[in-house]
Amino acid sequence: MASMPSIYLDNAATTPLDERVLEAMMPFFTGNYGNPSSVHAHGRNARVELEKARKKIASLLCVSPGEIVFTSGGTEADNTALLGAISAYGIQQIISSPLEHHAVLHVVEQASRRLGITLSLLDVDANGSVNLEQLEQLLQKNPRSLVSLMHGNNEIGNLADLAAVSQYCREHGAYFHSDTVQTVGHYPLNLQELSVDAIVGSAHKFHGPKGVGFLYINKAKKIPPLIEGGSQERNRRGGTENIAAIAGMAKAMEIAQENQEQHRQQVSALKDYFIRQLQQAIPGVTFNGLSGDPSRSLYTVLNVGFPPNEATRGMLLFHLDLAGISASGGSACSSGARLGSHVLQALGADPERENVRFSFSRFTTHEEVDYTVTQLKGLYPGQ
Amino acid sequence: MASMPSIYLDNAATTPLDERVLEAMMPFFTGNYGNPSSVHAHGRNARVELEKARKKIASLLCVSPGEIVFTSGGTEADNTALLGAISAYGIQQIISSPLEHHAVLHVVEQASRRLGITLSLLDVDANGSVNLEQLEQLLQKNPRSLVSLMHGNNEIGNLADLAAVSQYCREHGAYFHSDTVQTVGHYPLNLQELSVDAIVGSAHKFHGPKGVGFLYINKAKKIPPLIEGGSQERNRRGGTENIAAIAGMAKAMEIAQENQEQHRQQVSALKDYFIRQLQQAIPGVTFNGLSGDPSRSLYTVLNVGFPPNEATRGMLLFHLDLAGISASGGSACSSGARLGSHVLQALGADPERENVRFSFSRFTTHEEVDYTVTQLKGLYPGQ
Ligand SMILES: Cc1ncc(COP(=O)(O)O)c(C=O)c1O
Ligand SMILES: Cc1ncc(COP(=O)(O)O)c(C=O)c1O
Repeated sequence: MASMPSIYLDNAATTPLDERVLEAMMPFFTGNYGNPSSVHAHGRNARVELEKARKKIASLLCVSPGEIVFTSGGTEADNTALLGAISAYGIQQIISSPLEHHAVLHVVEQASRRLGITLSLLDVDANGSVNLEQLEQLLQKNPRSLVSLMHGNNEIGNLADLAAVSQYCREHGAYFHSDTVQTVGHYPLNLQELSVDAIVGSAHKFHGPKGVGFLYINKAKKIPPLIEGGSQERNRRGGTENIAAIAGMAKAMEIAQENQEQHRQQVSALKDYFIRQLQQAIPGVTFNGLSGDPSRSLYTVLNVGFPPNEATRGMLLFHLDLAGISASGGSACSSGARLGSHVLQALGADPERENVRFSFSRFTTHEEVDYTVTQLKGLYPGQ
Repeated sequence: MASMPSIYLDNAATTPLDERVLEAMMPFFTGNYGNPSSVHAHGRNARVELEKARKKIASLLCVSPGEIVFTSGGTEADNTALLGAISAYGIQQIISSPLEHHAVLHVVEQASRRLGITLSLLDVDANGSVNLEQLEQLLQKNPRSLVSLMHGNNEIGNLADLAAVSQYCREHGAYFHSDTVQTVGHYPLNLQELSVDAIVGSAHKFHGPKGVGFLYINKAKKIPPLIEGGSQERNRRGGTENIAAIAGMAKAMEIAQENQEQHRQQVSALKDYFIRQLQQAIPGVTFNGLSGDPSRSLYTVLNVGFPPNEATRGMLLFHLDLAGISASGGSACSSGARLGSHVLQALGADPERENVRFSFSRFTTHEEVDYTVTQLKGLYPGQ
């Protein structure tokens, strides 16, 4: 019996661990088990590695080590930045967009409800482009604003013009947080050039371990901790440091950054190839958001709109799954994905079409794309 | 040249990973890398293991799986329970003790300051016993209270009478949270018998990985999330689940519980032996808190007061470290330990004496204790 293929096209949800990352983690699961906060030899051995990881990540972002706070992932980092900025800077208005990840959207909605802060979600067009003129108008009205706009959208891949947003924020004295979970490791992020106050990363999006992330906080724009406790992370995040995962994240980011241009070319070529194959195989496919535009979207994400089809109606993902292909409907970052995508809704996507997010990594092959297209073609025989 | 010994007597700060735990984690670092929230095959394979881990931990505590929320550690779990109870139950008074870990103390202090809630820290005697009569009086005065009292103290080992505290809380309708970080895995915790509303665990305190913990929340006493985001953990904690660490924690807790009685006897005998050897070697040693009393303290913790000694004045830990012995002054859970112990201070400990916390695990040997006592004897030649 032929074995079932297992094709992973959901790298925006999470990525497989790079084996060099696992290697970097192993010492902490065996000999180097000390608590980095202990002052004795066992503690110091762990502490040294903790600070090495911090320096590495800081240098890759062109910031100072003291501006990096380790967290349990992107979500905690987003929560910390947003709630911290709100409480430290007397924020009266939060400006964000309906396309943000729930790690931002749910936090600002909740904060707005609880604290009575105005929440303004920017208008987006049918491609998911955010209205920056509206941003400027809102900033003019209220300088004590917190702006949270993501760098790369996890569902439709749209890349934001962080430089433009940060320019507006600086002019109007607003606090600028950007959810960079989908771009850290995949795009150069030189924070010397880009004036943002807070960005976040999550290791499992770039072949690092799950359950670890970081928060960059501009040293001129300090915020209080979300999780209080011991004096870890210079009193900015209590809790014994997850040193194995932190060392793994630093290694993953180093690998990602060192080979970024090569990975970008390789994965971009694959995405282009997928687009062309799909267009040939299934007339009428569309690409949601800007994901069909290589220069304005993540090279890792392609969000495909399929023409209405009786045979697969509401079941396309299920059919792909049966064929051994793992892809996602909208975002698979939480099981709420089953409820449909708030991003596609905000774009006014046609509910008759089925939308599938395919997302790639440097481990994805042309053969996997070919197999996927063949399967899709089989599901759309009438086309 | 003889190699330097490396003796780890700081198991209350963190413990080495059990190799069976690492084995349980490895599949998630290699093939089983899916996001447990994805609905496809890769996701389901991870999801199955996530729910197995939840069931395992729930059954070890005699609660239902829906009452377990995974977190990034004990500190996050404490923060979540305390802030959640305060916001959900209109808490007007927080009752706690000056001996709590900073993961509780800093949170309740901060909440009290920010929200104007009365914070009452119970009186403690010279042994660190908390005044339960005072607890009852305070509860009588204000039924909308949150009580947070730890099970086993991480510095002096004192065990609290959770049954008595929970009885008072029930009578007066108070919310009862207990920081059980030092007892989970080490003591039986049957939550069917013990009526608490929230307890917390941290895997690295029982030979599991760092950076993962859990929160038990009584299903009749729900609380809102601390970290908002995706709908993970049934909307109670956003963020991609750290499945490798969670599976490791479940394994560590299973191992701990299966062999609990044997481990308890083994480590208790070692602690007794250490006490006797110390008493012989260094006249005038004392034991802080109740740590010298086997029936009323953690069998893993011995907090020793050394007589004043010119040769080691303020440097005893440093001398031990030079001799290859890792122990801690007060709590080593955070680098704030360097500032001295808030627990020993609350007990009114003699500032002329040097206090060292030795803490043991099932991997600690009699030879290590012997070597440590010999070294200490050498440092106290005059005695
Ligand atoms: C009693 C107690 N509570 C809470 C914690 C915090 O746990 P974690 O460091 O895993 O966040 C610790 C140890 O650090 C502890 O000993
Ligand atoms: C854009 C974006 N932000 C935040 C997150 C949250 O990261 P984590 O799941 O590591 O908490 C994700 C993915 O889950 C994401 O894609």
